[in-house]
Amino acid sequence: MNLALIGDDDFLSPERVRLTGRRLEHLKTVLRATTGDRIPVGRVNGLMGHGQILSLTESEAELAVTLDQPAPPPLPLTLVLAMPRPKMFRRVLQTCAALGVKDLWLINSYKVEKSFWQTPWLSDENLQENLTLGLEQAKDTLMPTVHIRKLFKPFVEDELPALIAGKQALVAHPGTDRPCPTHLNQPALLCIGPEGGFTPYEVGKLAEAGCQGVHLGPRILRVETAVPVLVSRLFDACV
Amino acid sequence: MNLALIGDDDFLSPERVRLTGRRLEHLKTVLRATTGDRIPVGRVNGLMGHGQILSLTESEAELAVTLDQPAPPPLPLTLVLAMPRPKMFRRVLQTCAALGVKDLWLINSYKVEKSFWQTPWLSDENLQENLTLGLEQAKDTLMPTVHIRKLFKPFVEDELPALIAGKQALVAHPGTDRPCPTHLNQPALLCIGPEGGFTPYEVGKLAEAGCQGVHLGPRILRVETAVPVLVSRLFDACV
Repeated sequence: MNLALIGDDDFLSPERVRLTGRRLEHLKTVLRATTGDRIPVGRVNGLMGHGQILSLTESEAELAVTLDQPAPPPLPLTLVLAMPRPKMFRRVLQTCAALGVKDLWLINSYKVEKSFWQTPWLSDENLQENLTLGLEQAKDTLMPTVHIRKLFKPFVEDELPALIAGKQALVAHPGTDRPCPTHLNQPALLCIGPEGGFTPYEVGKLAEAGCQGVHLGPRILRVETAVPVLVSRLFDACV
Repeated sequence: MNLALIGDDDFLSPERVRLTGRRLEHLKTVLRATTGDRIPVGRVNGLMGHGQILSLTESEAELAVTLDQPAPPPLPLTLVLAMPRPKMFRRVLQTCAALGVKDLWLINSYKVEKSFWQTPWLSDENLQENLTLGLEQAKDTLMPTVHIRKLFKPFVEDELPALIAGKQALVAHPGTDRPCPTHLNQPALLCIGPEGGFTPYEVGKLAEAGCQGVHLGPRILRVETAVPVLVSRLFDACV
């Protein structure tokens, strides 16, 4: 936690916040903060700054906050991910949030096992929690939006074309001979398949919708590695 | 496992190999392979190709292998990592191997907790196992070398200068104003600090040795995310 993300409920007054739970624990056990210390804070979807600890008890910490810095610029990216395996889904969420991805679409694919959609990590509360961890890691405040689409065809035919409008649309696909572009730095939509990749039918449908296939070189990367590799290639802003 | 990595001990003859254990399990449970099927195989530090399944029993699979393709080119990178927290160390190892990192140095740093060095994941057997998983994921055969240095100062003063010779040397450090270069595509040495970063003293010692500070933008990334982001920036070969 490089920044404590605070929400409306945490505010006692415009300049006073109360921290409890995980953030309080982190304050005490990891940062070993004491009264008078300053820690980086940021308001969800708002400004960042610092909070000075006024009091610290077993159950809560009260801080005087000064919020005067803008959050890092969001990536102009719409990321469309085949729903990952639950055991890596949490990390993918945190990584996307840490990298500055703000618009995330989780879609179905032939190689997405039905059980993946049953994971508790898809609950609103768990999505928020893991996105928050990513933002607090990266020092960002803008909460990403997550869209869940459990049917591939309706999403690709009915929704994807509108999402692509005005963007460069790409699908990461080992089969193609075009390498992923670099320094794109313009609005983009990027599709990343499941373990084993999209099927030829799915790649065809994505191409029909306007997504150009790009490859990641000779190596096949897990989605949790492919996401930072691709984002880093497309956008200078992220590094 | 996008490729079954085979070692000298697996060979029954120059064209015959026997698979057991994890690779056999993967063959049966994930690939659901049967006699006659072809699967991608690669010889440790050697060529890649395919293996045709001649027989498949509870305890072993026998394959006729044809090895005729070179492994992907290694990254011309020496990666120097402050020893990561054990819970993320395995993933970092697998990610480095999957990205094509072949020369990995694990070093101490003020913010590396002593307990990190006690992890069983540092045993030769466990290092090999996790590097193998990364190579099998990426379809590569060249096993990375891992060097362990539990003392910072002797490493930086006595070994680092020789490692840097002929390379561009960088240290990822949020403090600096120089962004990480892109398309470097030349021999490089990259240092990445622990959670919380290198101390000013450590950054100074690394600078003395010839490492130039570069930043990763406004966001602070975990080492497991910073590695693919940096490698992807520096080397086109990886994507």
